[in-house]
Amino acid sequence: MSLIEDLKWRYATKKYDSTKKVNQEDIDKIVEAARLAPTSSGLQQFRVLVVSNQEIKEKLAPSSLNPEVMVDCSHVLVFAAWDKYTAERIDTIYNRITDERNLPRGRFDSYTDKIKNLYLNETPEENFEHTARQSYIGFAMAIAEAAELKIDSTPAEGFNNALVDELLDLKSLGLKSVTLLYLGYRDEAGDWLASMKKVRNPVEEFVIEYK
Amino acid sequence: MSLIEDLKWRYATKKYDSTKKVNQEDIDKIVEAARLAPTSSGLQQFRVLVVSNQEIKEKLAPSSLNPEVMVDCSHVLVFAAWDKYTAERIDTIYNRITDERNLPRGRFDSYTDKIKNLYLNETPEENFEHTARQSYIGFAMAIAEAAELKIDSTPAEGFNNALVDELLDLKSLGLKSVTLLYLGYRDEAGDWLASMKKVRNPVEEFVIEYK
Repeated sequence: MSLIEDLKWRYATKKYDSTKKVNQEDIDKIVEAARLAPTSSGLQQFRVLVVSNQEIKEKLAPSSLNPEVMVDCSHVLVFAAWDKYTAERIDTIYNRITDERNLPRGRFDSYTDKIKNLYLNETPEENFEHTARQSYIGFAMAIAEAAELKIDSTPAEGFNNALVDELLDLKSLGLKSVTLLYLGYRDEAGDWLASMKKVRNPVEEFVIEYK
Repeated sequence: MSLIEDLKWRYATKKYDSTKKVNQEDIDKIVEAARLAPTSSGLQQFRVLVVSNQEIKEKLAPSSLNPEVMVDCSHVLVFAAWDKYTAERIDTIYNRITDERNLPRGRFDSYTDKIKNLYLNETPEENFEHTARQSYIGFAMAIAEAAELKIDSTPAEGFNNALVDELLDLKSLGLKSVTLLYLGYRDEAGDWLASMKKVRNPVEEFVIEYK
């Protein structure tokens, strides 16, 4: 199947079959798609936390607009972005890039100096707005990969970020939660949205061409 | 090929062969992937502007950090998000959703009232931060679709948004530019990055599992 067919297949699942679990190999592929996502300056300003532990899911459930989905789904992926930029974080990434490419460290100094000058003069809130945006690219790749594997998913934004951050101690990791992705297998009979038509803006309203 | 293979294949192309153009059918598929992307509350808070007109590309070039890439690539996709939420915009989408599902208009009023109450009490800047985030999901799907079609692309953030908005008169459309996606075919010999290893954080640093 193509990405377009996969995207037509998927929908934001509202009810999971709590008896069906996603296997580790598939979870690894979903995380891998997020890991391979491009990000601004290649900094990969986010990480993915994968929660399958039922006790932790139940603790997290009150943070969710759909606590039942959190409890019933197989895995919860938390996309969490850097709480701010630091020179050390940027250097760590660029040292890895030069090392893996057999280039001398510092090869990209003129570039990293420029981005440090940009980001380190912003507030942490401005920094986070930028790192959070990057996490959406990985989030989207994970959504696409789950669809390719015919695993149901529910992308979610509306949750109590502070509670998730606290329960997973994200502060100590220098991270703040951005989005959740519930994964599992739909309970088709119990899901009001499963049979509903996918509705999108018509192409002619979505795109404007300058030929 | 799988999405993971496609993501390994792609890279942020730095030099395009200006003699090679992407055909319309492929452009349509790339836009379609973005159109099918999920968004918060299903509102599709962004549009895609597709620029292949050489004169417009050349006018846009000074806005870019890589003017040569803008000029040489085949198509420039501009991802532009709603400048703010309005009750009318939300109602237009939800009327379409109910109409296409043969449900009575107003079926989701309790939900749309809630999101109106949330967004219409925010500043336009806060609104835009949220709509811009949604556009990254479509942006990522377009990146993935281009890779599936073996079309080279360059995701770009660092550009003069105000200039792009002005040249494409995005204000009159109620939009603000967020990201660019250059599309075309690489000039392999002229592209320093084409032969470089893709570097990503190792899995064990990228993911944290709670089993």
